[in-house]
Amino acid sequence: MSPLLQSHACGSWFTPSDGEPLLDATTGEEVARISSRGLDFAAMTDHARRVGGPAIRALTFHERALKLKELAKHLSADKDDLYALSLRTGATPRDGMVDIDGGFGTLFSYASKGTRELPNDTIVLDGGHEALGKGGTFVGQHVYTSRLGVAVQINAFNFPVWGMLEKLAPAFLAGLPSIVKPASQTAYLTQAVVRRIVDSGILPEGSLQLICGSAGDLLAHLGEQDSVAFTGSAHTAAILRQHPSVMYGGVRLGVEADSLNCSILGPDVTVDDPEFDLFVKGVVTEMTVKAGQKCTAIRRAIVPSGIADAVIEALSTRLAKTTVGNPASDGVRMGALASLAQREEVRKAVESLRASADVVYGDPDRVTVVGADAERGAFMSPVLLRAHEGATEVHDVEPFGPVSTVITYDSVDEAIELAAHGRGSLVGSLVTHDPSVARSVVLGLAPWHGRILILDRDDAGESTGHGSPLPMLVHGGPGRAGGGEELGGIRGVLHHMQRTALQGSPDMITAVSGRWTTGATRNDDEVHPFRKSLAELRVGDTIRSATREVSLADIDHFAEFTGDTFYAHTDPEAAAANPLFGGIVAHGYLVVSLAAGLFVEPNPGPVLANFGVDNLRFRTPVKAGDTIAVTLTVKQVTPRTTADYGEVRWDAVVTNQHEAPVATYDVLTLVAKTWPT
Amino acid sequence: MSPLLQSHACGSWFTPSDGEPLLDATTGEEVARISSRGLDFAAMTDHARRVGGPAIRALTFHERALKLKELAKHLSADKDDLYALSLRTGATPRDGMVDIDGGFGTLFSYASKGTRELPNDTIVLDGGHEALGKGGTFVGQHVYTSRLGVAVQINAFNFPVWGMLEKLAPAFLAGLPSIVKPASQTAYLTQAVVRRIVDSGILPEGSLQLICGSAGDLLAHLGEQDSVAFTGSAHTAAILRQHPSVMYGGVRLGVEADSLNCSILGPDVTVDDPEFDLFVKGVVTEMTVKAGQKCTAIRRAIVPSGIADAVIEALSTRLAKTTVGNPASDGVRMGALASLAQREEVRKAVESLRASADVVYGDPDRVTVVGADAERGAFMSPVLLRAHEGATEVHDVEPFGPVSTVITYDSVDEAIELAAHGRGSLVGSLVTHDPSVARSVVLGLAPWHGRILILDRDDAGESTGHGSPLPMLVHGGPGRAGGGEELGGIRGVLHHMQRTALQGSPDMITAVSGRWTTGATRNDDEVHPFRKSLAELRVGDTIRSATREVSLADIDHFAEFTGDTFYAHTDPEAAAANPLFGGIVAHGYLVVSLAAGLFVEPNPGPVLANFGVDNLRFRTPVKAGDTIAVTLTVKQVTPRTTADYGEVRWDAVVTNQHEAPVATYDVLTLVAKTWPT
Repeated sequence: MSPLLQSHACGSWFTPSDGEPLLDATTGEEVARISSRGLDFAAMTDHARRVGGPAIRALTFHERALKLKELAKHLSADKDDLYALSLRTGATPRDGMVDIDGGFGTLFSYASKGTRELPNDTIVLDGGHEALGKGGTFVGQHVYTSRLGVAVQINAFNFPVWGMLEKLAPAFLAGLPSIVKPASQTAYLTQAVVRRIVDSGILPEGSLQLICGSAGDLLAHLGEQDSVAFTGSAHTAAILRQHPSVMYGGVRLGVEADSLNCSILGPDVTVDDPEFDLFVKGVVTEMTVKAGQKCTAIRRAIVPSGIADAVIEALSTRLAKTTVGNPASDGVRMGALASLAQREEVRKAVESLRASADVVYGDPDRVTVVGADAERGAFMSPVLLRAHEGATEVHDVEPFGPVSTVITYDSVDEAIELAAHGRGSLVGSLVTHDPSVARSVVLGLAPWHGRILILDRDDAGESTGHGSPLPMLVHGGPGRAGGGEELGGIRGVLHHMQRTALQGSPDMITAVSGRWTTGATRNDDEVHPFRKSLAELRVGDTIRSATREVSLADIDHFAEFTGDTFYAHTDPEAAAANPLFGGIVAHGYLVVSLAAGLFVEPNPGPVLANFGVDNLRFRTPVKAGDTIAVTLTVKQVTPRTTADYGEVRWDAVVTNQHEAPVATYDVLTLVAKTWPT
Repeated sequence: MSPLLQSHACGSWFTPSDGEPLLDATTGEEVARISSRGLDFAAMTDHARRVGGPAIRALTFHERALKLKELAKHLSADKDDLYALSLRTGATPRDGMVDIDGGFGTLFSYASKGTRELPNDTIVLDGGHEALGKGGTFVGQHVYTSRLGVAVQINAFNFPVWGMLEKLAPAFLAGLPSIVKPASQTAYLTQAVVRRIVDSGILPEGSLQLICGSAGDLLAHLGEQDSVAFTGSAHTAAILRQHPSVMYGGVRLGVEADSLNCSILGPDVTVDDPEFDLFVKGVVTEMTVKAGQKCTAIRRAIVPSGIADAVIEALSTRLAKTTVGNPASDGVRMGALASLAQREEVRKAVESLRASADVVYGDPDRVTVVGADAERGAFMSPVLLRAHEGATEVHDVEPFGPVSTVITYDSVDEAIELAAHGRGSLVGSLVTHDPSVARSVVLGLAPWHGRILILDRDDAGESTGHGSPLPMLVHGGPGRAGGGEELGGIRGVLHHMQRTALQGSPDMITAVSGRWTTGATRNDDEVHPFRKSLAELRVGDTIRSATREVSLADIDHFAEFTGDTFYAHTDPEAAAANPLFGGIVAHGYLVVSLAAGLFVEPNPGPVLANFGVDNLRFRTPVKAGDTIAVTLTVKQVTPRTTADYGEVRWDAVVTNQHEAPVATYDVLTLVAKTWPT
């Protein structure tokens, strides 16, 4: 008997007494058996909430990111077994790379984003503070905090590795434990990865649990702080939407459903343009990678009427070169579908399409196969159709396999309208080299799409293609595509968190948010804050500088020295005519340079460098004879987990002799964690 | 017979043949009759999509914002009739102010935010561009575009004016036409405002339609580009969630449900602290404003056990001073509930609460009334309860009236747990003067709340109070509160738009987004771009400067002149020991000052001023003897609709003799729209 897949629940591996057989897509041999009968779903959610969640949230975002990086490195070290298992799903090694390396790459990407774009803290500030009263005693600040629940992730069969990791990484970074439920058909590959993750001990206990088999009554145990991220069919999505936990229980449901994605060939493209080949290549790739079993595959190829015959011919020629067969065999470009049942579904869909489209390449019922038994394996030929004028099925019926339909258009508006008939897609692409075509088509498609690729000779070399979601870009689409949103870098993390508007005095907002807020108490210490290491520095520490008069000679000199002889600094008459200044003004750069001279502590100390300035605004012109001073206050401290220094953001306000702010900005410095005193 | 309320559909006013009576809350007299029978909902959605949407989207965000401002001014000019109608809903003049002026204030706020925080364009860029390939030929950019559908807004009876405008303003700004369906009970006041809006002709035709009466089969006509924003009971929300258009049709549903909001008195507060009085005042205000018919009212007053008796005594004393009666009468602090049926609901809820709580102030069945007939009007006494130990009803049953329950706690953790028993709230408040209490309680409450007020002596003077949503802060909450999010400034606008990740070459991303993207073509023109007015300036216009060597003498001189004698610029030995520099480096401010000298065009011209710098980062140290040059490229052009100039954002890259970037930043200038050549 083949092995029984184990689930990972409450910190241990659970073996069912028996299970349903899972068959090798190519050979039909039994790979494993699967069942979740006997799993205690209530205990699993409880374990996630009580053990996993608190353990993750005890780490800062940077610490979580480092765990993801460590995990990605660990998993990348030895992939042979995973590639071997991947073959059994019908995937070629190239398909496996998208799934396995794509998954590990997503971990790396989130590790990097988490360190660079999130604070070394457990909350995220959203936007700046909002003044809620004129006196400055009442302000608002939005923050994101981690939800206290569990992230349930229900994945599709086509990407058993990537599908899990692209949901796990942002959830983990957000502070949430995950319960993963892969589609049964390919769960053995997911299980192999989960086993490695668990064995590595890198993630805190309770961060990741696995359900092999049905999710049973799992959803009944979820509540207001929990979420379900589902990837799969629109049909199953509707069932989930009707679950009482979603309807009445406050469970957040995110849906990523297969959609009828289109690729549009621009009206500017001729058969001689490189874009013509790029379009053909793109469509064929999306038809054949993973045997077309991708929620992002191109189902509709929308092309100008005049060029349709040429497109079909080129597509057919290229498809004819696609060797189908045992994914382990050399030279095979397209493997098997996931199962015989899956092939049956696709054949049925093609049959429906034929009501208003003609098959112009391939035969859904016949295929020549290399290195395998065409009867026992779930093989199928790529099938290209051409839609009749006004066909509707093509916008509605999704063959989840190596099938695509050519649809023709006569105007850009018609192309956009045809695309919209898909009622919302994960991704669309446009192949054009004309920027004005790109602008009108893309803006026309955008309300219907989560992602749009513009492909031309300029980006083709580096393009990752129509079908590849990237960790830094949002993945998800409106309408038919489910209305969900995943990935998108930190956006995908924030979707797991709760945004809350805080209102209070600047001191209270500072205390809660950890970032100094304008109007809050400033700590005027006797020690210059540049003499303090990160260990000593506190949010609110302040230096109020001496004053300095800015003379006309200073302005003249600065103009001459820097070469910035803009008339407002040098020509009294012309400057007087300027509607904003009405006379000679000091250079903004002079003001901030002098301010630095006023606040700096010159001797070697913990402040290592000024690496930047943010949000510099010149608010009141400085005129000759004005006297300036600067107040510098520690706004935010971000120690780097992997360095012996960190970033300190200072609030800088330069004022004139009337106490009016003339320049406000943030000064960014690197400060040592410790410094001998 | 009282007037029949008219609906506004497809550009004209629709009068039903008859309708249900709506009664004055105070006198029981008939105010109007209401029915939507005979309205063509399909035609209304069609009108919104075909007429309203395109007309709004033909305007830029700034133009839409200006319309909102004009509308706010127009509506604010004469409010007497509205206030008179407001009295009939049972609202006191003070209640009316929250509704009417609060609504107009929301329009003003969105007008202001739309101009200041959105581009003068029809799309919004989300975040910076993402490098997707090492060669720089393939980049990503997220954009928001307007959805093409209609925003259906179903409002509650308690704020007939604010409730409409707080949904209308962000939807309009986002480019969406609205169909408003107010709760019948107070629809006559909404209708009066809609009539003013329509009569003013300020908004484009089709921007706003009104349904007085049932929404009939409206939802059946909605699709993937449409949304429904609902404010009301959790019960009705669940019915909407089950609608096929929501379940299968891709309609986005946002829910704002009443929640069991809490206010927590900090453990640090004694009866002698000003915070004690602030807490008592806050609870009484929330119980009595709008007769407690507010989704943000305080239903649960969570106080330390030791101080509970004192709190109850103080609340009772204050409640006893609340005169109930005809809202038109002098001295009346609390008017009637919206209807007799509503009062019956509240009485029933109080009865449920009594299973595990005692009434400690007021009698739900008896009240002394001023200037009205207590029998015919929907009057009710404020009712305060005290929960028994471990009571559960208080966290679950919502009396939508002047009712609140005191609950006691013994530790901060218990207070947080009690708050969480509400299963998600729109708002919570904490009254404390202790920042550490604030931090722990607020971070504990945050995952359960959309908004949290921290009240103390410092912000009390300017605080808008627990119950007031503000246009710049998000309004909505997780779980029981519906899971929706409205307002929050521009956040509320973006909720109406579709986010799409664009991928393409820098040139294509520039063409589609309208913002110059790193790597895109630079237009090296013979004319210095500082000589071009907004009318002539194009995104991509570039000036590449001459070079300048930065000498040790320059660095010495700059240090002396500005006073910035930081050792890295002045002390060779100490600078050599700096881990980041390893020797004397030029001041960052020197580099950008010299860069300005290199790119500036000194003569009077269309560039009026440099008003700021964004995202300045020093990437490579500049050492004595290095030669720098700067490339300045027009990144984004934002004409101001109401001024004869606009903002130009320039991409600045300073490079050294090795072409390595030493500083990158955005320069912000004001440029005249036209300039005589």
